[in-house]
Amino acid sequence: MTVRFAILGAGRIGQVHARAVTSNPDARLVAMAEPFAEAAEKMRARYGCEIREIDEIAGSDDVDAVVICTPTDTHADLIEQFAKAGKAVFCEKPVDLSVPRVREALATVEAEGGTLMVGFNRRFDPDFAALKAAIDAGRIGEVEMISITSRDPGAPPASYIKVSGGIFRDMTIHDFDVARWLLGEEVETVQASASVLTDPEIGKLGDFDSVNVILTTASGKQCTISNSRRATYGYDQRIEVLGSKGMVQARNTAEANIVVAGAEGFAEPPLLNFFMTRYTEAYAAEIAAFIAAVSEGAPTPTTGLDGLRALELAEAALQSARSGQAVRLGASAAAA
Amino acid sequence: MTVRFAILGAGRIGQVHARAVTSNPDARLVAMAEPFAEAAEKMRARYGCEIREIDEIAGSDDVDAVVICTPTDTHADLIEQFAKAGKAVFCEKPVDLSVPRVREALATVEAEGGTLMVGFNRRFDPDFAALKAAIDAGRIGEVEMISITSRDPGAPPASYIKVSGGIFRDMTIHDFDVARWLLGEEVETVQASASVLTDPEIGKLGDFDSVNVILTTASGKQCTISNSRRATYGYDQRIEVLGSKGMVQARNTAEANIVVAGAEGFAEPPLLNFFMTRYTEAYAAEIAAFIAAVSEGAPTPTTGLDGLRALELAEAALQSARSGQAVRLGASAAAA
Amino acid sequence: MTVRFAILGAGRIGQVHARAVTSNPDARLVAMAEPFAEAAEKMRARYGCEIREIDEIAGSDDVDAVVICTPTDTHADLIEQFAKAGKAVFCEKPVDLSVPRVREALATVEAEGGTLMVGFNRRFDPDFAALKAAIDAGRIGEVEMISITSRDPGAPPASYIKVSGGIFRDMTIHDFDVARWLLGEEVETVQASASVLTDPEIGKLGDFDSVNVILTTASGKQCTISNSRRATYGYDQRIEVLGSKGMVQARNTAEANIVVAGAEGFAEPPLLNFFMTRYTEAYAAEIAAFIAAVSEGAPTPTTGLDGLRALELAEAALQSARSGQAVRLGASAAAA
Amino acid sequence: MTVRFAILGAGRIGQVHARAVTSNPDARLVAMAEPFAEAAEKMRARYGCEIREIDEIAGSDDVDAVVICTPTDTHADLIEQFAKAGKAVFCEKPVDLSVPRVREALATVEAEGGTLMVGFNRRFDPDFAALKAAIDAGRIGEVEMISITSRDPGAPPASYIKVSGGIFRDMTIHDFDVARWLLGEEVETVQASASVLTDPEIGKLGDFDSVNVILTTASGKQCTISNSRRATYGYDQRIEVLGSKGMVQARNTAEANIVVAGAEGFAEPPLLNFFMTRYTEAYAAEIAAFIAAVSEGAPTPTTGLDGLRALELAEAALQSARSGQAVRLGASAAAA
Repeated sequence: MTVRFAILGAGRIGQVHARAVTSNPDARLVAMAEPFAEAAEKMRARYGCEIREIDEIAGSDDVDAVVICTPTDTHADLIEQFAKAGKAVFCEKPVDLSVPRVREALATVEAEGGTLMVGFNRRFDPDFAALKAAIDAGRIGEVEMISITSRDPGAPPASYIKVSGGIFRDMTIHDFDVARWLLGEEVETVQASASVLTDPEIGKLGDFDSVNVILTTASGKQCTISNSRRATYGYDQRIEVLGSKGMVQARNTAEANIVVAGAEGFAEPPLLNFFMTRYTEAYAAEIAAFIAAVSEGAPTPTTGLDGLRALELAEAALQSARSGQAVRLGASAAAA
Repeated sequence: MTVRFAILGAGRIGQVHARAVTSNPDARLVAMAEPFAEAAEKMRARYGCEIREIDEIAGSDDVDAVVICTPTDTHADLIEQFAKAGKAVFCEKPVDLSVPRVREALATVEAEGGTLMVGFNRRFDPDFAALKAAIDAGRIGEVEMISITSRDPGAPPASYIKVSGGIFRDMTIHDFDVARWLLGEEVETVQASASVLTDPEIGKLGDFDSVNVILTTASGKQCTISNSRRATYGYDQRIEVLGSKGMVQARNTAEANIVVAGAEGFAEPPLLNFFMTRYTEAYAAEIAAFIAAVSEGAPTPTTGLDGLRALELAEAALQSARSGQAVRLGASAAAA
Repeated sequence: MTVRFAILGAGRIGQVHARAVTSNPDARLVAMAEPFAEAAEKMRARYGCEIREIDEIAGSDDVDAVVICTPTDTHADLIEQFAKAGKAVFCEKPVDLSVPRVREALATVEAEGGTLMVGFNRRFDPDFAALKAAIDAGRIGEVEMISITSRDPGAPPASYIKVSGGIFRDMTIHDFDVARWLLGEEVETVQASASVLTDPEIGKLGDFDSVNVILTTASGKQCTISNSRRATYGYDQRIEVLGSKGMVQARNTAEANIVVAGAEGFAEPPLLNFFMTRYTEAYAAEIAAFIAAVSEGAPTPTTGLDGLRALELAEAALQSARSGQAVRLGASAAAA
Repeated sequence: MTVRFAILGAGRIGQVHARAVTSNPDARLVAMAEPFAEAAEKMRARYGCEIREIDEIAGSDDVDAVVICTPTDTHADLIEQFAKAGKAVFCEKPVDLSVPRVREALATVEAEGGTLMVGFNRRFDPDFAALKAAIDAGRIGEVEMISITSRDPGAPPASYIKVSGGIFRDMTIHDFDVARWLLGEEVETVQASASVLTDPEIGKLGDFDSVNVILTTASGKQCTISNSRRATYGYDQRIEVLGSKGMVQARNTAEANIVVAGAEGFAEPPLLNFFMTRYTEAYAAEIAAFIAAVSEGAPTPTTGLDGLRALELAEAALQSARSGQAVRLGASAAAA
């Protein structure tokens, strides 16, 4: 079965998904919705899809699934609208910045028997997937300690930071999802430290740019996450997992696999610098997994609940960074 | 301008080029020629192109360029036919196994004012291109000594070896081209040693499976090439260039960028094992370069002469391996 | 000037220091004190030194300096005895397991105008020293975030754990010192999580085997420390420092610098497995620095205060792991 | 048994061996011979040995073994003198620059039933020894193809080159020995190319600075050796062995095991730059092996014959570089 797609939003990430959909032999891009005429026209010319209004798409018989790439504050409404319209929904993270609103949207999806996949692209990165496969194959025994290093090449503009929900909800949220994916059990307590070290403007906006987090599960497994909004050497994305029998690391990807030697020593190129270049294959694999789930009527590999759990961890980390206390994930959270 | 393509031959390499052509926004795949009906039908279904006879393609007004992916013994004839038909020609290496036949075909292309690019895909590999860029940027000074290591995961079947022209014309030919590309001056003498170490059957076919070559230029620059038809750990493709100010290396590509540690030590996955996976990006970049040259009427980055020179080196190496003497590239070769 | 030494204690670490002293051209090993006759005799045979009682050494005119390698609970007393005897003192960490007792001993040393160096060997490791030199040379700009990974190949015996003061005072104490050395400012708050994951027996002794710590300074710099008592792949000792302009990492040392490739991929040997092999050069450099300071009457590179500060951090980490609260280093500590 | 040593020659390499002998618990340095009074006095002060004339040492009852570190043109005479005097002899490579003279000296040693070890230090390097151990353990199957890369940081002074016997006898000779050690069978043919690329002065002295060699055995195993007198990035010493089941590489040693990342990418320090630093452990292990052989009356791990064979390969390579022909190792050589 070919899954017929509409993409909502023709911004940077909308284009990434358009490329992924159109190069997948099991999918077809039918329509786009985009308020800016110029961006819309560009997409039509490039991918040969139609431009439609959002409400029109919700009522289109020739659309099976939508990819939501609009601003965060529209996600929950759109999820609900398209779940009710009977379309399978792929939504970029986060579902919403408010935990209660996320719960509400998830309840609607559940009531409608809908399909919702949340875009945690890292699970689909080939190297991270190989790391997970090594763990699942028992090569390191029982997982005990995880270290996630995630540093952006540079901070986003102030305009973005203002509406981002802060570093924990915007950036660390990916690492929270990776932590849950790899720990194999839910997090019980969160400890965090947060500072402003790279740019005082970020502090004026009430946000942080440098954070460390320790997550601990009921059985005592621990995961540390280290984030910075600045890494001069590129987009630093590493995972290390220590187990009872060994360790596995997923390493960074450089711009080119060469080394130049001279009197100063050995020089290798910086890391791939941009999330879209770094995660090209991950985005394609993520959409492929969504397409496979939709055509087979199978569960999606990430769900709305994953989005909720990651957001809860982000809130707990923010609270811990402010109070200095370990924050215990609530009973209500556990029951969600 | 969109370049309109036909591909001759729907085998393994024909499919690689079909993928490269169809995913390039400046090209369109109009037609295929393929004697086996099933393979032809598969290509039509996958890429939506027409199936035509070769002669029909030569006369087609809606075809600007052809990619020759047929067996080696048809290359020279097809190059001549399509040069006369006024089509730009991209031909897989080698042009022919006979140096005089190659010269003849090149003369025809020249007489017709035609365009001929020979498929030396390695020049377009991103890592090898980065190595070349580092040299061109002066980072290692003057090139002095080159080492090329090129080992196949395993030998091809006897049926292929029989018609391959032998390891120097079939496998080392790529390395000869890389050597010429990087040395920056023509080779003057060739010394070679050749053995059968991996499989006596290869020896029975009159071929070798393990060879080392030293190329020396007039100014004394040297390049070694080391080939084996067997590398249990994957497709081993490395280049190292020593210059007056330093050295540059292009390294191998592993299946995944992870490392697993345990009581036995540290383990990394084997190398990408197949030339099509290893050189996916190179094939796409190679076709993109051909498309750019054709649409701009510019010279192609590799030419028929490159094909000829590499073949001459292959013949010299074979002669040296047999005689034990350094073979000096002839005056006629230099004048070609 | 040749510094004349006595070593107190002929155990494992006493032998390490005996080797360092005897192979240093500016030092001479005059005497040893060791209650076990056999061990004492071995040292005399190997190094040609005399065997004396501790009190005898304190009164020996031919001894300028002592190295204290006796059990921890004797350190403070011996420091005081030898400071009063006018000998320069090098003492293995920790000075004592009790902060008040450490302060007392330090006060005595100060009153006597004595010299006390505490054995934090890692500062003298060539790779860690090169990392520090890169920071001091401004290569990464201002230090912002540090990650220290320190994992033992295996846990010590229960008998040792019982008297060790627990993982924070016994193992993490080295990392606390490294953190202080690299942060360039004192730690303000400590957050820690601690579990028993490798062996329930360790839990029965009231200790932990798996801990993560976040240290934060007044200006917001952060350092994480990750410890485990089990690393099947060897003695894992890494430091990574992120700065405003870049990052520096000191990497592990393998048993041999070789790689073996095969069908399973690439295999490298495990890490050096034992602290004495891993830190051979560090121990020699540490004693050389002590000798240089003593002969020149200069300050030692590590001091009793370094020992005190590291111990205070250990106590704070233990308290945080138990309470879940960030522990703020006290005013009294800052004033010490 | 403690082996009592005299060292002949207090130059650079004499000092290396003095350090190795004096730090070995099974040896004692009794005497030195050195014509320059100042150098001799320095050794006496540093190692507490006596200064004696060479003839005096030959007659000394308290000397069991000598290490010959004098200029090359004295080696053969001294070997003969000390073999006749009943001393075990360790001689730095080469035994002599003339093959007939080497044969003569070896005949004398054999007639006297003497012990002669030739200083091929690389066999004793821990990384190269680990590579050999991996081969011997069967980890790569049957050895097929070897690549040795050996580049000096810079050329020696003209005065040294003049008496060195040329690059093949002075520098490649080490690689010839390594090749023989690893191939497991004698070399049958030698092909070589040699140029002057780094400094025309070297050419004026009749020598080369850049050479590549292919060695082939009777069964078709091949070994390439690549040498340059210039490597801006340090002393480049690598070995790679391809076998029927896999490959093993011994890699270079950097000044420090750190990496610094910044906007330009990742930077690692240059290689250890000096043969004495690079091979410190190898020199100690080499002398230890000699001591063990002497005290046990066992054969030494390298012999005079190894010195002869490596010299024969050097002569063959020189002849091949000049003639362009593969040189077949003579029947007389094989029978030696």
